[in-house]
Amino acid sequence: MSCGEFELIARYFNRRTRSRRDVETGIGDDCALLSVPEKQTLAISTDTLVAGIHFLRDIHPADLGYKALAVNLSDLAAMGADPAWLTLAMTLPEVDETWLAAFSESLFELLEYYDMQLVGGDTTRGPLSLTLGIHGLVPQGRALKRSGAKPGDWIFVTGTLGDSAAGLALLQHRKRINDPAVHEALIKRHLRPMPRILQGQALRSLASSAIDLSDGLISDLGHVLKASGCGARINLDALPLSPALRDHFEPEEVLRWALSGGEDYELCFTVPEVHRGALDVALGHLGVPFTCIGQIAPESEGLTLLDNGKPAKFSHKGFDHFDAR
Amino acid sequence: MSCGEFELIARYFNRRTRSRRDVETGIGDDCALLSVPEKQTLAISTDTLVAGIHFLRDIHPADLGYKALAVNLSDLAAMGADPAWLTLAMTLPEVDETWLAAFSESLFELLEYYDMQLVGGDTTRGPLSLTLGIHGLVPQGRALKRSGAKPGDWIFVTGTLGDSAAGLALLQHRKRINDPAVHEALIKRHLRPMPRILQGQALRSLASSAIDLSDGLISDLGHVLKASGCGARINLDALPLSPALRDHFEPEEVLRWALSGGEDYELCFTVPEVHRGALDVALGHLGVPFTCIGQIAPESEGLTLLDNGKPAKFSHKGFDHFDAR
Repeated sequence: MSCGEFELIARYFNRRTRSRRDVETGIGDDCALLSVPEKQTLAISTDTLVAGIHFLRDIHPADLGYKALAVNLSDLAAMGADPAWLTLAMTLPEVDETWLAAFSESLFELLEYYDMQLVGGDTTRGPLSLTLGIHGLVPQGRALKRSGAKPGDWIFVTGTLGDSAAGLALLQHRKRINDPAVHEALIKRHLRPMPRILQGQALRSLASSAIDLSDGLISDLGHVLKASGCGARINLDALPLSPALRDHFEPEEVLRWALSGGEDYELCFTVPEVHRGALDVALGHLGVPFTCIGQIAPESEGLTLLDNGKPAKFSHKGFDHFDAR
Repeated sequence: MSCGEFELIARYFNRRTRSRRDVETGIGDDCALLSVPEKQTLAISTDTLVAGIHFLRDIHPADLGYKALAVNLSDLAAMGADPAWLTLAMTLPEVDETWLAAFSESLFELLEYYDMQLVGGDTTRGPLSLTLGIHGLVPQGRALKRSGAKPGDWIFVTGTLGDSAAGLALLQHRKRINDPAVHEALIKRHLRPMPRILQGQALRSLASSAIDLSDGLISDLGHVLKASGCGARINLDALPLSPALRDHFEPEEVLRWALSGGEDYELCFTVPEVHRGALDVALGHLGVPFTCIGQIAPESEGLTLLDNGKPAKFSHKGFDHFDAR
């Protein structure tokens, strides 16, 4: 890209970066300089989103700006971290001011909602892709990890499962429903996932493990079980499903989406019996439902799916990942 | 990519990650968890390298693994920071084990040299590109910034300038020389730049500003002048040039490479008169030459190039950038 193009792009991302007190130097030097307060641990994650793989090529830039940040925030939520700083490396096929305006507007809206600051970036010409580096803070020793689940702990998920996968099917015209409001709501669940930041923070003292659901419940719970050296029993009849899903699609399909559709960006977490009461207090006022869907078991049991108490079997794509362990 | 492919790739990057004591959780959870010691500031930077733009498409993977990290380390060097942690987001067109082995071997060799730990990553299928997020630590208040230069400060550069640009010209067969040893040495300067980490750290108490030379002296010094609100006088006859360059290429070309060739990854820094003596002590034993090439001037003077004390004029591509300010 030419100098002028770089400067043009920079304008969209420098113009209204908010100033956090812990940012000594933001964009504009060789590095950003950042203060981590005493007794806080830094939590960092990086994610690449490529057009045609992680998002539809015709996605609206405002949706992309939102979602790119939201899925990275979801990783912070899963650790119980407080969002702080973002770096954004963009590869853009061309300099399209309308695109840049919509993308940056939406990104900054979400950054500001979480009191985050963009502290670094890089722009290159090429096929559209974004790599975000997200940085959060969590009190020392209180981060939620995948490795702490113990047999007997209860397994919970926030929100409802499978809506995002249904929304994607509608966006891609693989499915149709006749209710425009429901249609829109499901698509919004795909394009505008709500990172469960507050829930993650509220779980710091209560959950024994946590993960965010990006690949689907079976796959992501599998990571927790592997890291914790445990098995699990999941009650299929307990999976939280939205009325939108239940009323408009076949039960088999709904179950497949809920188990392996992916991109829910809800939290899946485990809670020891002793904290189950406190959980209602901690999460109850945050406005998002949370549902017990099963229990951690010894590793020897593996993952068992139960339908009204009876072992259930499935064989579809989402299960390959897990079976291949 | 399939699950099996992801696991294969992961093996190359997980197998021998060293463990720093400040890494509570490395690769394998939603985020890495990292401790920043008291009275240290975090320095972070992100850079994307795209095949065909930032590196030649036929680059050897070992050279790419080295250089991708080295150019990011150079940003830490320019702040005087101590390298700590790396995140690596890769987009790969295919899973080529020979390529992965050579790339990762070379990357880890440099990581280990600087006692760094790879703490996060992401892999996607697509046109080859890499986005690195580099994290370093610097004592509070002692980071080198672009903004501290004052009129009267002396301008220095480490090493020699223009070798990397000459090496690139040789690699691309735009130039030829008959001495194979010199040919190899210049190409190595392009493919294997040495980040000036120790020099940056030694300059913490001495330099009033610093930047690393990635785009070329004129362009990068321009960033310092803009950030510091200053002008500068550069003595062209003082520019440090390698014998390899001087003996094998035309003077006009050598000067162009030294001023605007780019990818030197040397440091350019300014030192107040009062610290000039201490500089010899601090940098003298580090084995890399450093040369005074001019002096910071008031902003009203702009950037003046002097050839044996007389104003010099140039008009070639490298100067467009600066003239366009």
